[in-house]
Amino acid sequence: MGIDQLITPNTFGFIAAALTTIAFIPQVIKTWKSKKADDVSIVMLLMFITGLLFWIIYAIETNAFPVLIANIITFTLNVTILILKLIYGKRPTTAG
Amino acid sequence: MGIDQLITPNTFGFIAAALTTIAFIPQVIKTWKSKKADDVSIVMLLMFITGLLFWIIYAIETNAFPVLIANIITFTLNVTILILKLIYGKRPTTAG
Repeated sequence: MGIDQLITPNTFGFIAAALTTIAFIPQVIKTWKSKKADDVSIVMLLMFITGLLFWIIYAIETNAFPVLIANIITFTLNVTILILKLIYGKRPTTAG
Repeated sequence: MGIDQLITPNTFGFIAAALTTIAFIPQVIKTWKSKKADDVSIVMLLMFITGLLFWIIYAIETNAFPVLIANIITFTLNVTILILKLIYGKRPTTAG
């Protein structure tokens, strides 16, 4: 069995889905540790989370199980980042 | 023609793809204006950008044109955020 048979387009798809999903773990850890997310755009988070909700609906409608799982994880991580940003954003800062 | 015929699973897919792509525009604008991206995780950006590269390869291999376009835009926006972070990160800060 050659390497060309092992590496199919789906291989790239699985690596892509894994990376764009777990990428948000280091952001959760960084925000949790630093207790700061001032530089993270709340508009980005709200648009991204809404988009992920639509991916979840799409995945349910089309029975696309891998798409469903990947987007539920990405959704959960980004909602966590949003909640942390809202909690830490309430603290008084020295910024003008 | 009923509303159930107008709103197909693909409708949710298109809205999802549009939102998770353009979501990064407000982050680019925020970073550009504030000249700060300290709270944005560089590990997240590097993993996400690498994942998007794999999505682009997957889209080329499978001739998935909408996936290709969406990921090229998302890739470009996130590389822009990374470059801005690297530029502004070189400035001296008051942080310890």
